[in-house]
Amino acid sequence: MTSKNIPDFINKVREFLKEEQIVTDKEGMSHFCYDATEMRFMPDVVLLPYSTEEVSKIMKLANTFDLPITPQGGRTGLSGGALPVQGGLVLSLLRMNKICEIDTKNMQIVVEPGVIAADLQEELKKHNLFFPPDPSSTVESTLGGNVAENAGYTRAVKYGVTRDYVLGLEAVLPDGEIIHAGGRTVKNVTGYDLVALLTGSEGTLAVVTKIICKVLPKPAIRKTCIMYLNDLGAAADLVVAIFSAGILPCAIEFMDNVSINCVADYLPAAESLLRREAAALVLVEVDGNHEGATEFEARRIMDLCTGLSGVIEANRAENDEQAEQLWRIRRDTLPALKAKGKDHLEADVVVPRYQLPFLVRFIQECATAKTVKVATFGHAGDGNLHVTIQYRKRNFAELDEAHELLGEIYRKTIEMGGKLTGEHGVGITAKDYMKIQMTPAEISLMKRIKHAFDPKGLLNPEKIFPDNDA
Amino acid sequence: MTSKNIPDFINKVREFLKEEQIVTDKEGMSHFCYDATEMRFMPDVVLLPYSTEEVSKIMKLANTFDLPITPQGGRTGLSGGALPVQGGLVLSLLRMNKICEIDTKNMQIVVEPGVIAADLQEELKKHNLFFPPDPSSTVESTLGGNVAENAGYTRAVKYGVTRDYVLGLEAVLPDGEIIHAGGRTVKNVTGYDLVALLTGSEGTLAVVTKIICKVLPKPAIRKTCIMYLNDLGAAADLVVAIFSAGILPCAIEFMDNVSINCVADYLPAAESLLRREAAALVLVEVDGNHEGATEFEARRIMDLCTGLSGVIEANRAENDEQAEQLWRIRRDTLPALKAKGKDHLEADVVVPRYQLPFLVRFIQECATAKTVKVATFGHAGDGNLHVTIQYRKRNFAELDEAHELLGEIYRKTIEMGGKLTGEHGVGITAKDYMKIQMTPAEISLMKRIKHAFDPKGLLNPEKIFPDNDA
Repeated sequence: MTSKNIPDFINKVREFLKEEQIVTDKEGMSHFCYDATEMRFMPDVVLLPYSTEEVSKIMKLANTFDLPITPQGGRTGLSGGALPVQGGLVLSLLRMNKICEIDTKNMQIVVEPGVIAADLQEELKKHNLFFPPDPSSTVESTLGGNVAENAGYTRAVKYGVTRDYVLGLEAVLPDGEIIHAGGRTVKNVTGYDLVALLTGSEGTLAVVTKIICKVLPKPAIRKTCIMYLNDLGAAADLVVAIFSAGILPCAIEFMDNVSINCVADYLPAAESLLRREAAALVLVEVDGNHEGATEFEARRIMDLCTGLSGVIEANRAENDEQAEQLWRIRRDTLPALKAKGKDHLEADVVVPRYQLPFLVRFIQECATAKTVKVATFGHAGDGNLHVTIQYRKRNFAELDEAHELLGEIYRKTIEMGGKLTGEHGVGITAKDYMKIQMTPAEISLMKRIKHAFDPKGLLNPEKIFPDNDA
Repeated sequence: MTSKNIPDFINKVREFLKEEQIVTDKEGMSHFCYDATEMRFMPDVVLLPYSTEEVSKIMKLANTFDLPITPQGGRTGLSGGALPVQGGLVLSLLRMNKICEIDTKNMQIVVEPGVIAADLQEELKKHNLFFPPDPSSTVESTLGGNVAENAGYTRAVKYGVTRDYVLGLEAVLPDGEIIHAGGRTVKNVTGYDLVALLTGSEGTLAVVTKIICKVLPKPAIRKTCIMYLNDLGAAADLVVAIFSAGILPCAIEFMDNVSINCVADYLPAAESLLRREAAALVLVEVDGNHEGATEFEARRIMDLCTGLSGVIEANRAENDEQAEQLWRIRRDTLPALKAKGKDHLEADVVVPRYQLPFLVRFIQECATAKTVKVATFGHAGDGNLHVTIQYRKRNFAELDEAHELLGEIYRKTIEMGGKLTGEHGVGITAKDYMKIQMTPAEISLMKRIKHAFDPKGLLNPEKIFPDNDA
């Protein structure tokens, strides 16, 4: 598919980009060929624009050369969305990294797509503001990437996901046309919601070049509780009990027994906090600005635990330092699993909140008959489960088993009213399973929408849609 | 445009619909030819399906007859979105009015599009739940209509708009194909966000036949405050001060001097609560489940008023009955304006929150040189302003003036970074102004999206897009 005419394309690019914006040597390009999956795809050329106008010129030119274009941010994606599967052009937005404006009067920010999420949070802190969607990759991931994938993470249960904060986007269509969607208002029903359509579209419809988001005052107080359960069903009941009490925590996190033990091995300092025998750990945090109200909620949650059979231990962090220790357990789960030295298949399934522990039980039952190991953890308040299937490196029998299990998990998820992916995106990793979730008519409709933006199919090709869907 | 072959179409329809589902007589159809605007358009036939399958069959048939289809709910729209401009078929969803499920474990509901918003709230109350988007038309408007228009209203500042609650939709494409978008999970990034695209698409892309929404526990406590200001700028400062204090009220409503006086004339019982000389009234409500926290917030708001020059009076409702009296003032604003016996042009503009009072000032300045009267009121927390331009019935000079002023308001709104419509939709009333807000490329992109759903352009024709946009 890739145009044979890369040298001509690069010559044309040299007319408007500086040499330091053009990467064509293998070593230089090797920094742009990977993400947080284990896949690698080499591009033919990497361009690093500084402005929307440069992005537009590049896209217009790539369009005349029929060159595949893969937009790229911090390469922390877990579904391969930023990988140049067909080679061609990688359009890295890393140098468009200005925080253009922090509008404290309207509580809005305007940023370029290459801004690193953690840098934004630091800047917002100075104004006592925060941007709620804060993925675990925050120190490396870019705002543009978070918009492309509609990033969520722990605070989503209370504060929502990236899409809930994006008010406006400037974006460049594959033919180089610059468009503006939404803007600086919190409400807007003028025409179709292109902001929501672009957010989470995994860079397949347009390249986002500017992002307008709302931000919130940073809550002053948080209270963190940890519970150990001897029964998965109790986790479902606990989550329902918390919501039914009218409490909306800013996090309800979940870890299964395998994850707990893995972290206990990985973080000896945390071992005293962990119950290795527990079927599940649930971490709950409430936040707010009123000490009495947050204290009331935290106590109420502890009371609910007392009344619930299946809870074997429930503790509260007494200060911020203790809260950080509890959070470290949750945050280090994926690193702890990866430290086991095995290869992984990962899923990011999502089911109705109450069903999550029953999906975990199903996965565990499937896994008992297999050699591969499975760990599950995730966002219990959202029903969003991260599944890590560990198989021994280069063991093809185990790899086959892992794929078989992955298929079983996806099918059960859909059967339970769930979806293939809650926050990581379809990208490459889940696209072959799209047909389990969607009818041919639904896939065909999405392809027609793709065509409305990108009639030549040049932008981020071979993502989201299954390869063979005739 | 309308097919000449209506009798043949109706004969085919009789093969699968009962006689009581088919309206063809003029008197019967006259109930379906209007909405809350002053416009009227007669359809050629009205059909009232009971099921998704019937909707699908009707759409498939209408498609083969090239018949325009206008989906319709409670006909409370303020932009003409449910009016059959080209005649043809009105597809009334009023009989698909089942609340299919209230899932208290997952805090989700499944409803048909014809469910009346107020009926849903009544049912949810029994479970101590509520559905936050609650437009003023709640006793007549349908959930389907609220989804089509992405309804907002007073609680949006804290709780968001309809789109923030819709998790899944079943919908029928113009060719009769039934699709499902989203589902029963609070997160979902599998493919493009068709739920967000359909919500607010004003019935131009597909006919929604089932709606899955999240709902919330009903807050137990509310505290309501009312402030009178002698300066519009003070209203902007008050709103910023409240947000900056970390308080997120569930309503921040605004009325200008004309609106205040109009309600004082209309509601003699409320006159003692009203300050006729005030430049603006601001109504603020906080809610929650913790008495101490809501009391703290209400007091803090009153303190902020004391410290703000421009506030001439600030009062708190001491109980629910007094709170209701204050809300009555706000709720009766539009009826009070309509009772003046004049005709109206209405706008639903939205600007960045802080800019709203300055837009009001601009509108007042424009109006001083004119004969027509203007009243403004709306949702100050969202920057969403409802503008009512009153002109004498059948006075064409005043009508021209009203249109001139409307154009000035729209242009200023866009200049201030605002949008044509915040919650009423573009429909017919704002479509000629779309070109002020959007570039030809942006309108063309939206038309290509429309084409992806509705290649023949049969569904709700002549809405949203300007007539001449070559």
